[in-house]
Amino acid sequence: MPKSFDTVDVIVAKRDGHPLSDDQIAWVVDAYTRGDVADEQMSALAMAILLNGMNRQEIGRWTDAMIASGERMDFTGLSRPTADKHSTGGVGDKITLPLAPLVAACGVAVPQLSGRGLGHTGGTLDKLEAIPGWRADLSYDEMMAQLESVGAVICAAGSTLAPADKKLYALRDVTGTVESIALIATSIMSKKIAEGTGALVLDVKVGSGAFMKDLDHARELATTMVELGTDAGVTTVALLTDMATPLGLTAGNAIEVQESLDVLAGGGPADIVELTLALAREMLAAAGHDDVDPADKLADGSAMDVWRAMIAAQEGDVDADLPKAKESHDVVAPTSGVVGRLDALAVGTAAWRLGAGRARKEDPVQAGAGVVLHAKPGDHVTEGQPLMTLLTDDAGRFARAEEALTDAVDIVDDGEQLERALILDRISR
Amino acid sequence: MPKSFDTVDVIVAKRDGHPLSDDQIAWVVDAYTRGDVADEQMSALAMAILLNGMNRQEIGRWTDAMIASGERMDFTGLSRPTADKHSTGGVGDKITLPLAPLVAACGVAVPQLSGRGLGHTGGTLDKLEAIPGWRADLSYDEMMAQLESVGAVICAAGSTLAPADKKLYALRDVTGTVESIALIATSIMSKKIAEGTGALVLDVKVGSGAFMKDLDHARELATTMVELGTDAGVTTVALLTDMATPLGLTAGNAIEVQESLDVLAGGGPADIVELTLALAREMLAAAGHDDVDPADKLADGSAMDVWRAMIAAQEGDVDADLPKAKESHDVVAPTSGVVGRLDALAVGTAAWRLGAGRARKEDPVQAGAGVVLHAKPGDHVTEGQPLMTLLTDDAGRFARAEEALTDAVDIVDDGEQLERALILDRISR
Repeated sequence: MPKSFDTVDVIVAKRDGHPLSDDQIAWVVDAYTRGDVADEQMSALAMAILLNGMNRQEIGRWTDAMIASGERMDFTGLSRPTADKHSTGGVGDKITLPLAPLVAACGVAVPQLSGRGLGHTGGTLDKLEAIPGWRADLSYDEMMAQLESVGAVICAAGSTLAPADKKLYALRDVTGTVESIALIATSIMSKKIAEGTGALVLDVKVGSGAFMKDLDHARELATTMVELGTDAGVTTVALLTDMATPLGLTAGNAIEVQESLDVLAGGGPADIVELTLALAREMLAAAGHDDVDPADKLADGSAMDVWRAMIAAQEGDVDADLPKAKESHDVVAPTSGVVGRLDALAVGTAAWRLGAGRARKEDPVQAGAGVVLHAKPGDHVTEGQPLMTLLTDDAGRFARAEEALTDAVDIVDDGEQLERALILDRISR
Repeated sequence: MPKSFDTVDVIVAKRDGHPLSDDQIAWVVDAYTRGDVADEQMSALAMAILLNGMNRQEIGRWTDAMIASGERMDFTGLSRPTADKHSTGGVGDKITLPLAPLVAACGVAVPQLSGRGLGHTGGTLDKLEAIPGWRADLSYDEMMAQLESVGAVICAAGSTLAPADKKLYALRDVTGTVESIALIATSIMSKKIAEGTGALVLDVKVGSGAFMKDLDHARELATTMVELGTDAGVTTVALLTDMATPLGLTAGNAIEVQESLDVLAGGGPADIVELTLALAREMLAAAGHDDVDPADKLADGSAMDVWRAMIAAQEGDVDADLPKAKESHDVVAPTSGVVGRLDALAVGTAAWRLGAGRARKEDPVQAGAGVVLHAKPGDHVTEGQPLMTLLTDDAGRFARAEEALTDAVDIVDDGEQLERALILDRISR
């Protein structure tokens, strides 16, 4: 039982720029989870944390307190090592779909506890639910059995894992306190450490479509999370990757599953293949299993085999046709030239408004909705040629989606320098 | 009907250091009063305001919005001009009690809508309720009739006056967001402007026993309030006065009424007399009525006559004995010398713990409880001589009160410089 404090004293300490003590943090997180600290008190504290920050020590204790609010999982009984990947969220980021079966095909188990989308960033579970019959909710025993037999599982995180984070995240979402590096890092890492993975690779997105709009903030977030993971005994590495442009050529649900299948079949867009392989190599290395080249497992079809087993184990119909949107509408190039910028946030917002995402967590999503891109930065286009196709079941949504796409694309003269690396940095301890 | 906004957008704007627009402020205050903005959202906004501030324009609009949340009173039908005084709260601050009848005796009506004490600062209504029979709650018509017939009324502010402030103040109290100059200024001035006084004198306390611990912050608060009042057409002046030391020789309820009676009878502690006369002169000048010297009205007993009429009009028994505490305990001088510092916060906290104040607004207070001082800074004391007497109905409270008084008093060598002015500055436009 942690020592007890006066809530206002804790808020005032952080408000006035003082570090919180270990005992204060253990108490306030526990008391908030139990309901003894009210929502209006925690939101004031969250705002003070956002504006005044937390030091390394505070961030560590805050993470510990969130882990202590729930149960911890344990994968040490499995016959193979485990590695997990977490992305901070972007547009067109379906990487988990090909990555989990690929890494499993290389001999490392992947327990991927995922979330649903909110706002313009998509959710992995929403994408997989486009597959007829597929089921996100597994019991602990089902998950363990599938990890042992198939080697990969993508499912919903149970409510017993870091419940303090679940409650705090919902509060931050409505109180303007999401964008704190300390609170983002502790939220992600408390869940990942409680989950019990042996190794963790973080994909920290940078750019218009990500929480972190610039490289310095992304690097600070990545460094903070790598320290937290390492301190907790989880081998943790982070890649900083570009999210100024959407990943691949699709942003939606069913259309992202299809693009993932293309990658598992040995094709797919080059950026998706590049990032999937880079993250797979990091996961294998972090799990001490780097003698296998994941590119071989894409080429020989064994990653696809694991995918089919993984989807089938969760009652998904691997051979069924994916849902298609009822309506489509092309956005055409206003002029000829080369695509310069293609804004990830604008595309993500358009996909969201078309029905691929949700405004409130209880909203349904459309499986077929989204945006298919026909050109990416560096591609030549001719005036009047389709730049992208908008998909939805409800034609009334096109206008608001197109509004989001105003100024989303720059078409520039041929010959301008357009190269931008996909992988911007790598952080490890 | 104000234009509508997304609550999170308003919070994020202030969080990121941007000024809020007139429409945003009008909307958020109205929506909070109606319950469309949740407590946890308003507390996050209050913390962002506390840490990032509001500019003059925002403070003006915030005040307007709080006034607009309720009714406005109007004293222009009275036969004499009106002047009100507001103190930001201190220890032993019974000045309203002699001041209101004194100013009325000089020909200016004083509508004093007061509050109850919370924490270590006393409440005017709590003090007057020590008088048997006295009634704080008056109807609007009763208040107006008393103002016309007696010239002075001290009563509870009705719930129709700036209800947004009432709700926001209760929220700030539990979320560590009280100490914001913008929020303190808008809270005080919205009530005072809505109340409809023609002139207002602010007594802004500075020192350990006050919200404002240093002169710079007190001056900023005073300047902000003087601007707000003047802009709203209320002649407004502020005095900055010392609250490092308690005012007078008593901190409690009945004992402060008794000290006020001493002043009205032409005696009483010099600091109480000095501040009462200074504030009276400011109120008379602000009301355009400075041809009368209030010192004469103390000396000739006419202020005491108004006091008796004022208390009797609210059913108080002016001739009844005041309640006395059942238990008393002396704190003695540990050494001989001259009293140097006598800490207002410590004395206020001791009086509160003895039962004179309340921790929660629904708690009762003890009429007889409090602290009587036998020496003030500059007074010679001998080892073992009583420095103060603690009063309570419950002897179990002495220990915690004495704890608050550890380090409350410095006894220094004779000859050290101890002078500190009571009135530190005057702010007007």
